[in-house]
Amino acid sequence: MSLQSVAKRVVELCNQGKNFDVMHTLYAPDIASVEPTGQATVGKQAVIDKSKRWAEGVTIHGETVIGPFFHGQGRFATKTIFDITRKPTGQRQKLEEISVYTVKNDLITREEFFFEGENW
Amino acid sequence: MSLQSVAKRVVELCNQGKNFDVMHTLYAPDIASVEPTGQATVGKQAVIDKSKRWAEGVTIHGETVIGPFFHGQGRFATKTIFDITRKPTGQRQKLEEISVYTVKNDLITREEFFFEGENW
Repeated sequence: MSLQSVAKRVVELCNQGKNFDVMHTLYAPDIASVEPTGQATVGKQAVIDKSKRWAEGVTIHGETVIGPFFHGQGRFATKTIFDITRKPTGQRQKLEEISVYTVKNDLITREEFFFEGENW
Repeated sequence: MSLQSVAKRVVELCNQGKNFDVMHTLYAPDIASVEPTGQATVGKQAVIDKSKRWAEGVTIHGETVIGPFFHGQGRFATKTIFDITRKPTGQRQKLEEISVYTVKNDLITREEFFFEGENW
């Protein structure tokens, strides 16, 4: 694979709602996942667990991913819109975010999420 | 100002086509501007000159900027679509890109451009 192949696979899988397939197949063992607040979760299983906790709290009606957009030898970005309902409140909302990924040896070693000001 | 103020100002000015106002008022003296290829231009005037050269080669019909999206204490991202015609060829095209900015002391110290694979 290459940076381009990894990036296109991420976009393809996420547009099918298969985010966990991305995590299981393309995350490096020591991946760092960094929230908009700057808080980092490190390690493949820890990041998958974090995502599971998030996914359990919402109903995902749709996920639309645009990209990939490339920078340098090892990074790409995507723009995502999630259409979700938060289970505790029943509130339906669109979550718009930009994600920046770092790839080494065909695996994602870092993901950074950028959120609109209103959502965090 | 704050990170939020700087970011909103960038989006506001760019949506008015006033990119050079952003450069003149919000760039740090030692700003690094990094192209999708990874090539960096360093220094406020050098970056402004680079942008002038680009702008001279195109007719800009429109510029639409979405964001800002925030990450951590000092970074934000935007998504831009330029509607341009390249003067040498007369070719009209949409340039879609994601920009990631680093802000320190209310000035932009780094900008990184992410392009779609087809455009570089």
